[in-house]
Amino acid sequence: MRGHEIEQLIKLLGRLPGFGPRSARRIALHLLREPQARLVPLARALDHAAQAVKTCTTCGNLDTSDPCHICTDPVRDRSVVCVVETVGDLWALERAGVHRGVYQVLGGTLSPLAGIGPEDLNIASLLDRLECGGVREVILALGATVEGATTMHWLMDKLSQYEGVAVSRVAQGVPVGGALDVLDDGTLAAALGARRPA
Amino acid sequence: MRGHEIEQLIKLLGRLPGFGPRSARRIALHLLREPQARLVPLARALDHAAQAVKTCTTCGNLDTSDPCHICTDPVRDRSVVCVVETVGDLWALERAGVHRGVYQVLGGTLSPLAGIGPEDLNIASLLDRLECGGVREVILALGATVEGATTMHWLMDKLSQYEGVAVSRVAQGVPVGGALDVLDDGTLAAALGARRPA
Ligand SMILES: [Zn+2]
Ligand SMILES: [Zn+2]
Repeated sequence: MRGHEIEQLIKLLGRLPGFGPRSARRIALHLLREPQARLVPLARALDHAAQAVKTCTTCGNLDTSDPCHICTDPVRDRSVVCVVETVGDLWALERAGVHRGVYQVLGGTLSPLAGIGPEDLNIASLLDRLECGGVREVILALGATVEGATTMHWLMDKLSQYEGVAVSRVAQGVPVGGALDVLDDGTLAAALGARRPA
Repeated sequence: MRGHEIEQLIKLLGRLPGFGPRSARRIALHLLREPQARLVPLARALDHAAQAVKTCTTCGNLDTSDPCHICTDPVRDRSVVCVVETVGDLWALERAGVHRGVYQVLGGTLSPLAGIGPEDLNIASLLDRLECGGVREVILALGATVEGATTMHWLMDKLSQYEGVAVSRVAQGVPVGGALDVLDDGTLAAALGARRPA
């Protein structure tokens, strides 16, 4: 009924997380009503982002340079590594401005039920960083979920073999069952500030 | 903190209706995580839509051809014109499959307070179609809002001068204060089916 290009746009928008057919149509119409002012700039931004985006081989962050802006920032304290599950969690901590060290993005959590083991996460590169020395603290900033706790205990065990590396975990303060990237800055700051030796 | 291309993408996503900073970041991350599978196809779809989309000079629909697929469909009854406020309303009626005639998209409603008069809507082209003859019925399918009612009464008055053209309005059944494009198909069918002479 509508041209192929419009149907295709609605179809792809409908696949975005949190979108249904109705919101896909609404956004499509909003964009189509002002193609030059809305559609074209968004297409261009997506295109530029697709060309520019890289995964940081040091920490796993998504950025436009590799190593990322955080890993290359000279004022960052490379001796404190904050371990997070996702890039969204990293972004949340950066918005809160509560961590002045660097990060390690695991890319998920251990989940025996889902068949996700240590080799499926960015754990080897974390251990590489510890082998290379210079790291004095690893902060485990994982979500207070079953998988987050499983991952934290596995890492605590694994990291205990590195002498001279303190392992801490963010304080309870992360709501049980909650993810890090939906928390307000104050809660994130409190959880990080009240971290304790693991 | 993040590269310019990522910030720009989040900024543009945050301008979409119903989006806030959080949903913009969530969608950006979702896309950035799989650039080739998600970002690139969406950029391409937006680009193709931007190049293909046209406003139908006959009815005001957005489509990839002008006249649009509806205006050129040989099985459509060109003698029955359904007047709607927006393309979204037209799409809603098409999804419901309850109108076998053609459409006229006004592009809004009369609103003396907002300074929107008849000359700001696609009313002249509606009158042109009536002047050309062949139209036997105009169905006013406007929202049950103050502006919708204002527009409907203005049109009823204007259209009464065309002899041989029956003017009807969709039945009450459109919830008071509600817009057409959020209604379920059954309600749309009932409202259209129980239309009465204006
Ligand atoms: Zn990095
Ligand atoms: Zn048309």
